[in-house]
Order: sequence, then structure tokens, then C-alpha cells
Amino acid sequence: MGKCKIGIIGFGTVGKGIYRILNSQNDSHPILNEIEIIGIAVKHINKKRDIKFENNLLINDPYELIEDPNVDVIVEVMGGTDVSKDIILKSLKARKSVVTANKAVIARYGSEIYATAAKYGVYVLTEAAVCGGIPIIEPLKRSLKSNQINKMVGIINGTTNFILTKMTNEKADYNATLKLAQKLGFAEFDPSADVEGHDAADKISILTELAFGGEIIRDSISTQGIEKINIKDIEYANKLGFEIKLLAFSERNHVDINDSLSLNIWVAPSLIPKSHPLAMVGGVNNAILIDASPLGEIMLYGPGAGSGPTASSVVSDILALHASLSKKIPSIDPLLSSNYWRDCHIADFNQISKKNYLRIICLDTPGVIGKIGDLFGKNDVSIESIVQLDASENKAEIVVITHEVTNGKFEKSKQEINALSEVELIASQLSCI
Amino acid sequence: MGKCKIGIIGFGTVGKGIYRILNSQNDSHPILNEIEIIGIAVKHINKKRDIKFENNLLINDPYELIEDPNVDVIVEVMGGTDVSKDIILKSLKARKSVVTANKAVIARYGSEIYATAAKYGVYVLTEAAVCGGIPIIEPLKRSLKSNQINKMVGIINGTTNFILTKMTNEKADYNATLKLAQKLGFAEFDPSADVEGHDAADKISILTELAFGGEIIRDSISTQGIEKINIKDIEYANKLGFEIKLLAFSERNHVDINDSLSLNIWVAPSLIPKSHPLAMVGGVNNAILIDASPLGEIMLYGPGAGSGPTASSVVSDILALHASLSKKIPSIDPLLSSNYWRDCHIADFNQISKKNYLRIICLDTPGVIGKIGDLFGKNDVSIESIVQLDASENKAEIVVITHEVTNGKFEKSKQEINALSEVELIASQLSCI
Repeated sequence: MGKCKIGIIGFGTVGKGIYRILNSQNDSHPILNEIEIIGIAVKHINKKRDIKFENNLLINDPYELIEDPNVDVIVEVMGGTDVSKDIILKSLKARKSVVTANKAVIARYGSEIYATAAKYGVYVLTEAAVCGGIPIIEPLKRSLKSNQINKMVGIINGTTNFILTKMTNEKADYNATLKLAQKLGFAEFDPSADVEGHDAADKISILTELAFGGEIIRDSISTQGIEKINIKDIEYANKLGFEIKLLAFSERNHVDINDSLSLNIWVAPSLIPKSHPLAMVGGVNNAILIDASPLGEIMLYGPGAGSGPTASSVVSDILALHASLSKKIPSIDPLLSSNYWRDCHIADFNQISKKNYLRIICLDTPGVIGKIGDLFGKNDVSIESIVQLDASENKAEIVVITHEVTNGKFEKSKQEINALSEVELIASQLSCI
Repeated sequence: MGKCKIGIIGFGTVGKGIYRILNSQNDSHPILNEIEIIGIAVKHINKKRDIKFENNLLINDPYELIEDPNVDVIVEVMGGTDVSKDIILKSLKARKSVVTANKAVIARYGSEIYATAAKYGVYVLTEAAVCGGIPIIEPLKRSLKSNQINKMVGIINGTTNFILTKMTNEKADYNATLKLAQKLGFAEFDPSADVEGHDAADKISILTELAFGGEIIRDSISTQGIEKINIKDIEYANKLGFEIKLLAFSERNHVDINDSLSLNIWVAPSLIPKSHPLAMVGGVNNAILIDASPLGEIMLYGPGAGSGPTASSVVSDILALHASLSKKIPSIDPLLSSNYWRDCHIADFNQISKKNYLRIICLDTPGVIGKIGDLFGKNDVSIESIVQLDASENKAEIVVITHEVTNGKFEKSKQEINALSEVELIASQLSCI
């Protein structure tokens, strides 16, 4: 088997991690020696870098690598969306398979990218785009392929999990914890993609298409971030036996009359019972729980980001291509490629069912719990618990946890509760599993 | 792509699970339709079976399937060792790839079986042999291939985990719980392979060869079962902040002067801190934690046995063969095959280091803790904690937890402690992580 010659585009955290794996003296499998870096495209060749490497590998123009007939595989680890989309598509059209860690591009332009790869008889592999070093894309493509996937629920953003873990452990407020996370390098200078839930939505979008087999519209995923989580919510949740985590959720709902599979997908900060396997996932770790038939429930847990873990996934994808491409045959491995096999769509938001947590600030008058309970009952919303948890001066805080109920019924109840004269404010609304 | 035609040998729990997957109306990937069952070899064709199936598929002679030129893949799910070894080897020699759920055969005859597969240009896939439905073999072969594996530690036997969980939750003794497990179908009539740790040793043997790349002698794995676990050990462990689980452990130690990798492998009931990710693995579930460079620590968790989960792994392996074999090319996929790539050996038992738990029954006289502490100190055994936990009449129970120490030093200390006139009995000895 000849060497697998790669061109790397981008030499940031992940790019350097890849270089380190391919040049380490680790006692890993000798097949790693069959990967050879032909060139690394960077913006600034002469920039000072915190890594020892062969300087003559650096070039300026990524398209030079794409057009280089010596290059078998393009590794896109530059980030961003527009330029990297162009680089991925041009590589595929040049009949070079692509390995990418770019969740934003795949979540938005997956269908175009997958179709282009199929058309030109090459692959685009994305293990590093979701959950860093945790094998999740490949198990969905291979080990779990014999199953019907029913549900996926995961903690798939490390930054927000770090912030929520820290807030929980140190009873610290959101803004102070975000600043700490930024200082420690766990949150970006502009943290919006993480804390507003968009990064998690990108990832659950990629996983959903792979698990359920159809294209979905990334921007239609209902997405709630953690910016409004109050330390009180965490304290109350803990007191009632829950942890608060930012969850990404995707579940088969029903097959509609057009044979399209309706999916219940959302990203939201959520209460999960302390005994739930996801409750122990702390810090920047990620975990994803998959419910499948006939398999049952499995969980994959590990480091969701970082140079080493993400590079490990990139290099494994390169090896998969190497094993496949070295055969020089025209047919495409159906387990390695990404193709849609059925229609899917995101269920109407109002029809989606879930459990909810609501924190209500109201006047501390007798009968207010009864009134709130009545309004839920009138709207057919079944309540798991309703607790008055804190009272100061003449104010009270009431926490309600519902059973599973459609968003439509829940939102209607919420509006009616908000209109009660005793209710001052609906301070927070979270999901529950 | 033509159909993948399989012959199934054995029609017990797993065989029936495979039949159900291939004949279900589930909304799983359409590639499953490309698998066709040609025949199912069973001992008793006319036996009453709790499954609706096409009766004309059953035949008596497994070798008929092996010799049938229509059959692409042999699926060995009959269990046992001698006959199934012969069936696997004959299938490979007939140039048919094999999928097996048989951990005992692979753990004992892996090297002969892998070599035969390589010689005849076919594969033997074993996902179902370890941890039922949890993808672990394939991640080790593929997703984690870019890493140096440092350590694997897992709960990989469902029966013993069920028993230990039940003993912990209900403060029940070992024999009563074993009987309950047998009644519920979670333990065999002859439970020895499970409770004595042999099944876990089979599995860690298979995983070790795959992760570290060299052949090891299955029967040299130090194996301790759970038969002697007393409810007192569980209570004391819980009180000190630990759970007791039957762990399988495999760790790289050092590369010796002959360039052979020394491995620290054992199976033993062990104390693990309640905060450890493995501590939450209850009932018949399995989980395996893998520490790798540069990946870090990941955990794979799920159902370790059962018809659906195990059959799910078998069918995924069949799909992997189908994707690979349909290309009809002579070269072997290096990621799909099992081959050794370096020398390994199990480290000398006395040189292996670990933490230990010891429960000592002794006379309740002043100074006995001091004497025990002195003896450990003299032998260079550092102690994490030493606690007198229970005293009745003139007896006391002392629990010692050591820091990491070589077995040699620990065993010497133990003998000297046992010789103390105040010491009546060393009641239990467990490992710790």
C-alpha cells in the first residue's frame, strides 16, 4: 500500500494537533507512518508558532494543494464558512476526498457537499466536526447501522458545560463564570455561537441527518442558549434532584402521510435527574446518549474539544480514507459515504412534546399555587411538581415541573399564568428530560 | 451491489435476534435489505421455537453452509469452544468471512483464527463477542487507531454487575442474589464463567490484543471473581465513598529490552470512587473507559448482553463485510482485519502495581492498627487509609486501603500481617482504582 498524501488547510489548534500525531514517537499503530503531509496552507507563513515543524511544508495558497496531483486527501481545519465551503467543494470536484472538522459548514451545506462527493466518487468525512475526540459519526455510520435510531440526547458543547458545571459547583453567576471561561481559554472572545446554543444546533443537525437519513433545515432547529440561566435555577434544580445541562435533543416522532419522518429536534438548557447518566458529565466533556432498536441505550462520553482529541478524530478519518482509497476501485463504500435515504422534516414546534420547568415570581398570597395549577389543568397540562421554594418580603418563587406536554398547550398556559394579577414575572423556562 | 448471503450457525438468543433484525419492519437503513439468510444450521430442526420464521431455512449440518458456494459470510452464534473453533477455521479456509459472538473461542484461539483469515484473504469480525451491543471492537480498529492506547478499564460482565448492584442496593448477601439472578435469567445455571471472572478475562484478552497490537496468553491473566464478596465489604466500601465493581483492567507498562510491550492485565472485584464515571454503571449494563494519547479519556456505555444488543453488533459486522466484500478485490482492508503489529507480554504478577483494599478481622486490642501500619511501612507499602470499622465482643474489623504498590510488596506485607498474633483472619482482598 502506497502512502496517503495529505494537504492540510489551516494550522491552528487542530492542524498542529494533526502534525503532532503524525510526527510523534508514540507507540501507536504503524499504519500511521503511511500518512505523509505534502503541504500546509496558512495565511501567514512567517508567523511565530508554538510548535517545532518542517518549515518548508508551509505554503500560502490552499488551492495549490487542491490542484496538486500528489495530494490524495485535503484536510480542512481552517474554520469559518464561506471560504472553507469553497475549499471543500473545489477539493471534491478535483476528486480528492476531504476530512473536515468544520461543523458550521457541514451543518449548513451538508446536502450540497455530500452530493458533490457522491458525484465525483470521493468522500467527505466529519468525525472531528462533532464532539471532538468521541467516536460518534463513525459508530452512526457503521456499528449502529443495523438499528433504527429512536432518540439522541447529548451534552455536545464543551464551553457551556464548563460554565454550567462551574456555576453549579461554585454557586457563581453566569457573567462572572463566562469571564472565567474566557480567561481560561474555554470560551471564545465572542462566545455567542457557544452560549446561544448555535454550535450545539450545528452538531445535532449533522447527527440527525446521519441517524435518521434525511436532510433537515439547520436554521429551523429550535435553539435556546444558557445566557439567561440564573444561579437560582441551578440551586432550585439541585434541590429538587436535578442538574441543569445544555442538551441537544433529536427524536423520531412519526412518519407522515407523505412518508416523511417527522423529527422532534431542539437545543435548550434542561433539567436532568441526578441519577441520569448524562448528569455526571462535567466540565468541557461531552456525552451523547443514543436510544436505538433493538440495541437499547448506549452512551458515548469523552473530551468534546481540544487539539489532541479533535486531531485524533481527523487522523482516524484520514486512515479510513487511506484504507479505502488505496484499493483504487471506482465503487463507493456505502458505510463510509454520507447519503440520504429517506425524507425527514422537523416537526411543527407547537406539536412537539416535552417536559418543562418554569420559575414564576409572584405575590406571596394564599391560593396562588392553586390558581396556577388550575390554569395548567384547564389547558390539559399535567404537572409533575409545583413547589414554592423561596419567599422574601411579600414575594414568592414558585417552581413548576410539568409532565410531557405539547409546546402549544404549554405556551398557552404560560401566557394565561403571566396574565394573573398575582404573577409578577415568569423568570425562567427550561426543558426537562 | 449484489446481496450479501449469510449462513447462520446456531439459532439461540443471538441467532433469533439476527433473524428479527433482518425481518423487521423497522425504519432502519435500507442497506439491511441487502442481507439474505441462506440457511440456519441447528441441532434439532423440529424443536419448538418462540419466534415466527421461515421453517425451510433450517438445516442440520453446519458444514453444508460452509461448503455452499452461495454463502458469502458465516455467522457463528452457537457458542462453545471446540466445535465452533473448527467451524470458524473451516469457514475461513473455504474463503468465507466469519462474524462471531464467541468470546471464549476468540480469546483462546485468536492468533490461529486471525492468521487463517489473513492467509485466505478473508475477515473474522468479533464486535458481538465483547460488551454485547456497545461498539468497542470497531472503535478500537478504526476511530481510535490514530492513538496510542494507554489503559482500558471496564465493567464488561453483565451478570456480575447485576449481582453486585443488587447486593449494594438491597444489602443482600451473595448467594441469595446469585439465586435471584439465576431465576431472572441474568445468570446461567452454572454461573462459574461469569462469577469467577473468566468471561471478563476472555473479553479483556480480546480487547488487549486489539488495543496494544500483540498476542497475549489468555490463561496468564490474573483473574479474581466475586464469589467471596461479603456484604460487609460492600457496606464498608460505600461508607468510605466507593462502589465495588468487577473490573477488567489492561494497561501499558513499559517496553522491555526485547522491544516487547509489558502489559498490566487483571480482572478483580475493585473499589472505585463514587464520583468515577464507571461507578454509575448499574445492573446488566457494561462500560469501558479508554485512556489514549492524544485523545484523553473516553467511555463507551450500554447493554452488555441480550438478544437485541448482541444481534445488533453481529448485523453491523455483516454490513461491514458486505460493504468491503462487494468490491471483489484481492487486498485486505487493514482497518477491518485483525493483525498483530508488535510483541506484547503480560507483566510479571509481582511487578504489577495497583491499589488494594484489605479487610482484616483481629482482636480488639490497643495498638493493633499501629502494628499493621508498621508492617506495611517496613515493606514500603504506602497507606491511603486505615480504619477500624466494626467491633463486636472482643473482635475488630480493620479496613486498609493502600496507595499504588507492587503485588510483590503487598503480598509480603499481607503474609506478615496474617502472622500477627492479634490477627485472626484476612477476610477479603480487593483491588482499587
